[in-house]
Amino acid sequence: MPLTPEQQADVDGVSNAAAQPTRRATVPALEEILYQPLTVLDHGFVRVIDYMGDDAAIVQAARVSYGRGTRQVSEDRGLIGYLMRHRHSTPFEMCEIKLHVKLPIFVARQWIRHRTANVNEYSARYSILDREFYVPDREFLDARRAERRRERKGRRSEPDLFPALPKNLAAQARSNRQGREEVLPPDEAAKILAIIKSEAAREYTIYTKLLNEDAQGRAIDPDRHGLARELARMVLPANIYTQWYWKIDLHNLLHFLSLRADPHAQYEIRAYAEVMLDIVRRWVPIAHEAFVQHRLHAVTLSAAAFAVLKRRLAGEDVTEATSGLGKREWRELMAALGGAD
Amino acid sequence: MPLTPEQQADVDGVSNAAAQPTRRATVPALEEILYQPLTVLDHGFVRVIDYMGDDAAIVQAARVSYGRGTRQVSEDRGLIGYLMRHRHSTPFEMCEIKLHVKLPIFVARQWIRHRTANVNEYSARYSILDREFYVPDREFLDARRAERRRERKGRRSEPDLFPALPKNLAAQARSNRQGREEVLPPDEAAKILAIIKSEAAREYTIYTKLLNEDAQGRAIDPDRHGLARELARMVLPANIYTQWYWKIDLHNLLHFLSLRADPHAQYEIRAYAEVMLDIVRRWVPIAHEAFVQHRLHAVTLSAAAFAVLKRRLAGEDVTEATSGLGKREWRELMAALGGAD
Amino acid sequence: MPLTPEQQADVDGVSNAAAQPTRRATVPALEEILYQPLTVLDHGFVRVIDYMGDDAAIVQAARVSYGRGTRQVSEDRGLIGYLMRHRHSTPFEMCEIKLHVKLPIFVARQWIRHRTANVNEYSARYSILDREFYVPDREFLDARRAERRRERKGRRSEPDLFPALPKNLAAQARSNRQGREEVLPPDEAAKILAIIKSEAAREYTIYTKLLNEDAQGRAIDPDRHGLARELARMVLPANIYTQWYWKIDLHNLLHFLSLRADPHAQYEIRAYAEVMLDIVRRWVPIAHEAFVQHRLHAVTLSAAAFAVLKRRLAGEDVTEATSGLGKREWRELMAALGGAD
Amino acid sequence: MPLTPEQQADVDGVSNAAAQPTRRATVPALEEILYQPLTVLDHGFVRVIDYMGDDAAIVQAARVSYGRGTRQVSEDRGLIGYLMRHRHSTPFEMCEIKLHVKLPIFVARQWIRHRTANVNEYSARYSILDREFYVPDREFLDARRAERRRERKGRRSEPDLFPALPKNLAAQARSNRQGREEVLPPDEAAKILAIIKSEAAREYTIYTKLLNEDAQGRAIDPDRHGLARELARMVLPANIYTQWYWKIDLHNLLHFLSLRADPHAQYEIRAYAEVMLDIVRRWVPIAHEAFVQHRLHAVTLSAAAFAVLKRRLAGEDVTEATSGLGKREWRELMAALGGAD
Repeated sequence: MPLTPEQQADVDGVSNAAAQPTRRATVPALEEILYQPLTVLDHGFVRVIDYMGDDAAIVQAARVSYGRGTRQVSEDRGLIGYLMRHRHSTPFEMCEIKLHVKLPIFVARQWIRHRTANVNEYSARYSILDREFYVPDREFLDARRAERRRERKGRRSEPDLFPALPKNLAAQARSNRQGREEVLPPDEAAKILAIIKSEAAREYTIYTKLLNEDAQGRAIDPDRHGLARELARMVLPANIYTQWYWKIDLHNLLHFLSLRADPHAQYEIRAYAEVMLDIVRRWVPIAHEAFVQHRLHAVTLSAAAFAVLKRRLAGEDVTEATSGLGKREWRELMAALGGAD
Repeated sequence: MPLTPEQQADVDGVSNAAAQPTRRATVPALEEILYQPLTVLDHGFVRVIDYMGDDAAIVQAARVSYGRGTRQVSEDRGLIGYLMRHRHSTPFEMCEIKLHVKLPIFVARQWIRHRTANVNEYSARYSILDREFYVPDREFLDARRAERRRERKGRRSEPDLFPALPKNLAAQARSNRQGREEVLPPDEAAKILAIIKSEAAREYTIYTKLLNEDAQGRAIDPDRHGLARELARMVLPANIYTQWYWKIDLHNLLHFLSLRADPHAQYEIRAYAEVMLDIVRRWVPIAHEAFVQHRLHAVTLSAAAFAVLKRRLAGEDVTEATSGLGKREWRELMAALGGAD
Repeated sequence: MPLTPEQQADVDGVSNAAAQPTRRATVPALEEILYQPLTVLDHGFVRVIDYMGDDAAIVQAARVSYGRGTRQVSEDRGLIGYLMRHRHSTPFEMCEIKLHVKLPIFVARQWIRHRTANVNEYSARYSILDREFYVPDREFLDARRAERRRERKGRRSEPDLFPALPKNLAAQARSNRQGREEVLPPDEAAKILAIIKSEAAREYTIYTKLLNEDAQGRAIDPDRHGLARELARMVLPANIYTQWYWKIDLHNLLHFLSLRADPHAQYEIRAYAEVMLDIVRRWVPIAHEAFVQHRLHAVTLSAAAFAVLKRRLAGEDVTEATSGLGKREWRELMAALGGAD
Repeated sequence: MPLTPEQQADVDGVSNAAAQPTRRATVPALEEILYQPLTVLDHGFVRVIDYMGDDAAIVQAARVSYGRGTRQVSEDRGLIGYLMRHRHSTPFEMCEIKLHVKLPIFVARQWIRHRTANVNEYSARYSILDREFYVPDREFLDARRAERRRERKGRRSEPDLFPALPKNLAAQARSNRQGREEVLPPDEAAKILAIIKSEAAREYTIYTKLLNEDAQGRAIDPDRHGLARELARMVLPANIYTQWYWKIDLHNLLHFLSLRADPHAQYEIRAYAEVMLDIVRRWVPIAHEAFVQHRLHAVTLSAAAFAVLKRRLAGEDVTEATSGLGKREWRELMAALGGAD
């Protein structure tokens, strides 16, 4: 259960409060889950705290930009699809969402690299962190292990800088390359998980000891002073949970999701991205559909790769040697076309 | 009347629509004016289209950052004042507002320099601009004239790069330096206004002629082709009105207002800033009060200027010569202290 | 000649100054044109004022991110192509360039919408603008006229919100749709140009009269006061030239160019983009090549459009009706494949 | 020694390379330390990798903004002081610097909250982190302990949300409140440091074991597979070192320094800020002086606090009760005036 009793009391209080009337754009499907923690990983969650705008707000903004000329447009869906396809991003910036997220610190470090958002994070300078650590389960480890094996192969045979295939092309290639031997054997996995758990427990105990403070804020040993919180936290491992309020506009959220809901992203942040994709689907269903079609599952081809396709459509039997593509781009193209190489 | 009939129909439609229930933070004082155009200058307006958060949302974000350590804080007002005084800006970023603004292009050009906002502007590439121009009235010209005179004086006597005293110190100094002779004489003002009006009318007629299109989109002269909109707009003067949707978080809005609600700002953008300050007062009254006290009307003194104050408080008779301040900074300090020099 | 005598003196001064030794990354091909105004349109220019980094700086930053795992990469070109193809944007942010640009105000208004840059613009509040206006020549007008005709067609037959085809697909479609009848007849074009010129001259004269100041800053009529600069500029049309210093990192510059060097962009800003593309080619030739191949001339296909291609490659005769694509997307796809429908 | 042998080889290579001629703005005092690691804490460093602009570039940008009106300004120092005092920030954005920084992860987490910068960080997904941990020395712990004691006091007696006095007022107050009893006794400090050291060593050993890889990349136990790097890093504590390339403009760097070179900032990040302040002094000495005088050591007073000063200067004996200030603001004001209450 990811919420502390205090957080649960907060949720209950808000949820039971009477709704207020508003003349702002309102999305009933999102109101339904407002404030509810949607669980992610073992102790994490995402909660929608507030939102501004809906699909109609995107259309409204596009129409102020394009003025009288857009009166004839009969359908919002067509317009939103057009905006997404042609990367007219400013209308999507007119929607905003605020989330409360609980996540391991190593995930938070990847997440914060997205700069166009507002953040208030729980501070371990001022407060004591809770005793909650992310521990992968077996299933996670199997997937990770497979990624690592693939990474190793790449490093040996060629300049394989990055551990995964390009986003849009990854699905098939991954299944082709993963073999049974890439999964951690059950006993090795069990040992590793036991180590991660016991080390987390050990370091939290040491953290408490350095602070010389128990969960109620009482000195453990009245004869010691205790170390400042801002220093004691140094011993805590990167899988301890933190939490933050995170506010972002829809355009930048979709950009975040295009990177983090991708098979190339680390499993743990992808788990959050997938929950957020579902939130987007409730919030702005038309924009969500356009995003999946024209961004998340779209394919971008270089001028040279597109020329190869056109030659093939014209009946020419283009090979790697005659394609003009580098080895890696050729392989990516073949993977995108269905894995046949 | 700044709204076209179509815009007025929009306003009426939304205003008469039934309010929806929401569990989000809601501000009744802001709901009251939602969608209503608040008039600015002769044809401009500001309308609140949407908002996210309230004073409590600022406190909520501050508390997630400062965690358990803040439980004892009894009062939101004290906390918001503290945050404002010490420029802890991230909690203010948790509130967001979306405005629809109609404004002259030369004002829009100053406004857009604030980069941390989302904008969708009416496009003169795609649509024909309305026949509405900003024409100052006599009162405006008097104020402008006074500013210009002051600017001239500065240029002659010393390196007076900028036309006004520092923000917080400007009020008294201004009244000291403004004299009757700085106001445009009534007949010169009347002539200037007549020119501005007639030139605006002339150029709009030429714009229409270049487009070869009347307000209903019909060709004026069926034998001519007409110039593309994106080129025809070149002849329009900078006092024609444009409009945009503008969305910004509270921290950045307050930064905008600290610069644009300042006596140093050009009158025309200040007119918008003052309307927006009033919107902020309705929306987040506690943050508004803290902003006025700790930012808008605050005084910042350099290390050297503060040392002068301390010496004076200790009874020393500090003069410009013994102050260690430059001539300009000395004058600014004296102005801040009440004009006595 | 776009430079004033004073600016020319500046250029000469800097150009003749002795070079200084530095241990920073230095690009001889860019040093060659440093400070030289590269002319654009009739009075505009772009000058490189300073730069930071080169192709090697991109590689260096990518390698700190990807650490030991990248040791095996033998070739910078392959790495930069990979980064560009997979939108790993942060290494490109490690290069920075500063330009001095002179441009018409209506172009400046489009340009400034790119927020991730630093700008210092010549201010018409403090200074008097020069008497320089953009006046298109015949060739420009022909191109504009063709665009407008296309726009009209779209508006009548379908929800054609935007006046051009998608970026990557535009080239062929444009040539197909442009006919001789879309060009402004010579006599109409001549009349329009004469109007634009004479109105610019007229309004500049009125500006001077309102200011009551000649080019040397002397009162024209000693009995009048003159209007403040910040107000007098209101009568100036949008084709008057302004200038600014503009500083941006390479990633954001390439994003700007992907939008503004595109056939869809207005001709006048495209003229600047093309000069800047050439600057990029001198500065970071490997990144430039990767950008052209993987971004500027790349094609992005939605999941549905890519499925159509795969079905065609498999021998199926896919038609618009069986494609599952909307009418517009189908047309765009056909245009990309060579116009054959 | 903070540099690995490989990094040292890089430094030596660049340092011994012949300087290249450039016509860009060049700062000899900064060239002197280019690429040299300036040590911070026990294993950290800051290295200047590249820079753009100098004091003259700030002046140049201000002059394009303020045009002819600024010709008369005789002195750059006066202009830069003016810009700093009145927060005209855009001219300072025209200078840019790129640093290579090695820092503990808990410092990196504070640092990255400054969003207006470009970053490429060493990735523990792709590479193995070095065995280097930050361990405070005795002196650091004494200072930390004092801060913590002060924080406790605050929490008990009043709504003392934040652990320190406001920036500009902190110096005296701090010395008043720090007592001998606030320093950790030598034996407790020694024990704490021993724990921090031994835990870091232990966790690094476990990290290596999970990876099943030694420093040369060889499997430790050929019968085990090893855990993926992106997961193994979870057990590493927050005092392990990471490194990044960090590029920022001067305005945003000064904003960073105004927060992080402040006594309120955590000691460890302040240590980096002080080294960077010294870099700024070498790079743009005039801007540095203006920053220290008008920002770092300036005092900002609310409207109410400034009114108190004026009443005192007029001879009135203002007390807390008659001041109209809140208790906390009164105390801050008294501290700023010299601690006499």
